[in-house]
Amino acid sequence: MRIAAITYEEALASMLLFVRIQDVREVPLPDAAGEILAREVIADRNIPPFPRAAMDGFAVIWTGKETERPYRVVGTVNPGTVWSGDASDADCVRIMTGAMVPAPFDAVIQVENAEVDRGGAVRFNAPASRGKNIAQEGEDVLRGTVLVPPGTFLSTRHIATLSSVGLWEVPVYRRPTVAILATGDELVEPWEGASGPKIRNSNAHFLLAALKHSGFREVRYLGIARDDRETVTAKIREGLASDFLVVSGGVSVGVVDIVPDCLAACGVRKILHKIAVKPGKPIFAGESSDGGIVVGLPGNPMAVMVHFYMFIRPLLLKASGAAEFLPKPIRLPIAEAAVNKSGGKRFAVGRLETIGGETRVVEIPSHGSGDFVSACLADGVFEIPLGTSHLPAGETVRFYPIWGNFLSNEG
Amino acid sequence: MRIAAITYEEALASMLLFVRIQDVREVPLPDAAGEILAREVIADRNIPPFPRAAMDGFAVIWTGKETERPYRVVGTVNPGTVWSGDASDADCVRIMTGAMVPAPFDAVIQVENAEVDRGGAVRFNAPASRGKNIAQEGEDVLRGTVLVPPGTFLSTRHIATLSSVGLWEVPVYRRPTVAILATGDELVEPWEGASGPKIRNSNAHFLLAALKHSGFREVRYLGIARDDRETVTAKIREGLASDFLVVSGGVSVGVVDIVPDCLAACGVRKILHKIAVKPGKPIFAGESSDGGIVVGLPGNPMAVMVHFYMFIRPLLLKASGAAEFLPKPIRLPIAEAAVNKSGGKRFAVGRLETIGGETRVVEIPSHGSGDFVSACLADGVFEIPLGTSHLPAGETVRFYPIWGNFLSNEG
Repeated sequence: MRIAAITYEEALASMLLFVRIQDVREVPLPDAAGEILAREVIADRNIPPFPRAAMDGFAVIWTGKETERPYRVVGTVNPGTVWSGDASDADCVRIMTGAMVPAPFDAVIQVENAEVDRGGAVRFNAPASRGKNIAQEGEDVLRGTVLVPPGTFLSTRHIATLSSVGLWEVPVYRRPTVAILATGDELVEPWEGASGPKIRNSNAHFLLAALKHSGFREVRYLGIARDDRETVTAKIREGLASDFLVVSGGVSVGVVDIVPDCLAACGVRKILHKIAVKPGKPIFAGESSDGGIVVGLPGNPMAVMVHFYMFIRPLLLKASGAAEFLPKPIRLPIAEAAVNKSGGKRFAVGRLETIGGETRVVEIPSHGSGDFVSACLADGVFEIPLGTSHLPAGETVRFYPIWGNFLSNEG
Repeated sequence: MRIAAITYEEALASMLLFVRIQDVREVPLPDAAGEILAREVIADRNIPPFPRAAMDGFAVIWTGKETERPYRVVGTVNPGTVWSGDASDADCVRIMTGAMVPAPFDAVIQVENAEVDRGGAVRFNAPASRGKNIAQEGEDVLRGTVLVPPGTFLSTRHIATLSSVGLWEVPVYRRPTVAILATGDELVEPWEGASGPKIRNSNAHFLLAALKHSGFREVRYLGIARDDRETVTAKIREGLASDFLVVSGGVSVGVVDIVPDCLAACGVRKILHKIAVKPGKPIFAGESSDGGIVVGLPGNPMAVMVHFYMFIRPLLLKASGAAEFLPKPIRLPIAEAAVNKSGGKRFAVGRLETIGGETRVVEIPSHGSGDFVSACLADGVFEIPLGTSHLPAGETVRFYPIWGNFLSNEG
């Protein structure tokens, strides 16, 4: 039986419709980076919350006559302290960067433009202007402004803002629970010896690492199921207790590809089977009778490594409340011509290199979909669109840095 | 006193000389992503480890006469199983993708080119060639090949390879321990109320989150020290028990900037103080009498958020054994002209946008170094080199996606 293939974009869009968002929980601020914000974060004060000195120097009342007379120092204001008192327009206070400029002062003359004489009087060699060297209250942000919208994937850069508004208990979305099942008589676990026709299970352990790395911590590993209907069906039933079930192997059309049948036997309704994409053509996706999402990936490692990020993670992120859940490309030129013999979209493996002062995508030659070793040299994948059999060198492609820390800066 | 400023590159290079690499420990494979590999990973078998069928079909002994006669099916080989027996050149075995092609067969004809008649004989409508549809043993990688070199920052993409060679206990470098100290009379903690001249401590909590996110888990938070020498000195002494001590605030040249003096009182030798970079000019760095690294960052949040990634993290990664520890830029055009009034290198805040089919860096207007809110809108920073006061629109800049998940794909 030939199953008509839909495009990668259609497949992803159709599956996203079935995804349900989880509840909200609170996490302490130190655990918030990597989580998805569930409520907007609002400025509880103006930022800055007071007129703030931007330089070390002297706060004066602006008159325009600052260079014309000596000033009397009537106090000192450091960050965190308040000065109050009466001041005439010939008085000044010594002030430090970050301190609150007290009324009635309205300008700061930086210390480099001041000289203090032996008697303690100050002379300025540059005039002020109203507000000079002062960050005004509310200049950055007014109280009540939305600083971070809900659905934001919180990164370390948001933590300073959350701290500044005193958000210690952060409302974030719960993550869906995920179960992982590997299938195949050829598989043994990494801690077992592998000889003859046996190979070690790499797909499940990649998936477990990738889930953990993406913040999904309630993950259940169901182990390796042998290629018989009873075993696979029993494992699938266990897996359907999770919000997502990902199965690797057994979704193609050979006699050992029993996963779609076993899923059907467990009440999983097929939504799609076969996508016009390489790697990943035999992908199966469906919905369980409880509304759980099931994705069956082919057993080949490149398909698993690419489509965890390109197909499964967008679904997981949407279920986690993320406002932006689609992979975001960077558009960059390819160093050499690339071909696509697949008759669908092709995700080719590449790394970023600086060539002629430009960042270019260099394709990594691969021995095919089983060649997971080539991914060790890669920063991500780039797209050769459906209907394009040849891309000339220099052509701009969509590059997806999917495999983490492709810059040494990404952990 | 005016301290001569060195360049950012000189500062980083000089500090990297003082960094010592930690010991090796073993972690279980599921915890290895995000760690730095301490020993090379070698292929324990050829990859593929046996001649592997690349298609579902029939394995034959190549003769060139495959279309001329009927074949007898003498067995079936599924992945993980072995077939053995005698076979003539008119015999074939049914074989599944991923299965070991048994001797003496040396070609696979795909199922689409075969017809099985009622009597069980197979006829092929396409000839074979020697090795057709077979991935040969060792075709990807030969046994003994280095698959992943030591010093590699392990990402999820390496996990499949580590699994495949059975590396369940992974040798990785220990991470240095880190202590964080915030200083400033103006600071209160996020869980406290902030009014008048007080502001909430955002720097320490950003640093704690960023360290955690970068895999540094032995981190000690020393709290907020008031701006008096006794308190700051006592806290510094506590912090020097860690391999790295990062202090925020108090490193400029005002009267409350007592950190360099207090560090000296604790036996910390100054290596540099003041860098020709904005933000981050007052950065202090030194070495303790035990060989610990101390970095003092100015109290302004942008300097802390930028230089955790641009200055401190490279040191931490080198100490963690990483072969590549410098931030890696992507070279991209800027959307609008950018200026640099700093007299040194400037790191400007930007985000990536698709404009005219190209990915461009868009500068985010900032109200200055205290404006951490603008970082919420940013994907990273780009560099305006020392000596460049103006970059025209379209100019290529080095963009550093430092703040994590700048693509929705980065966790």
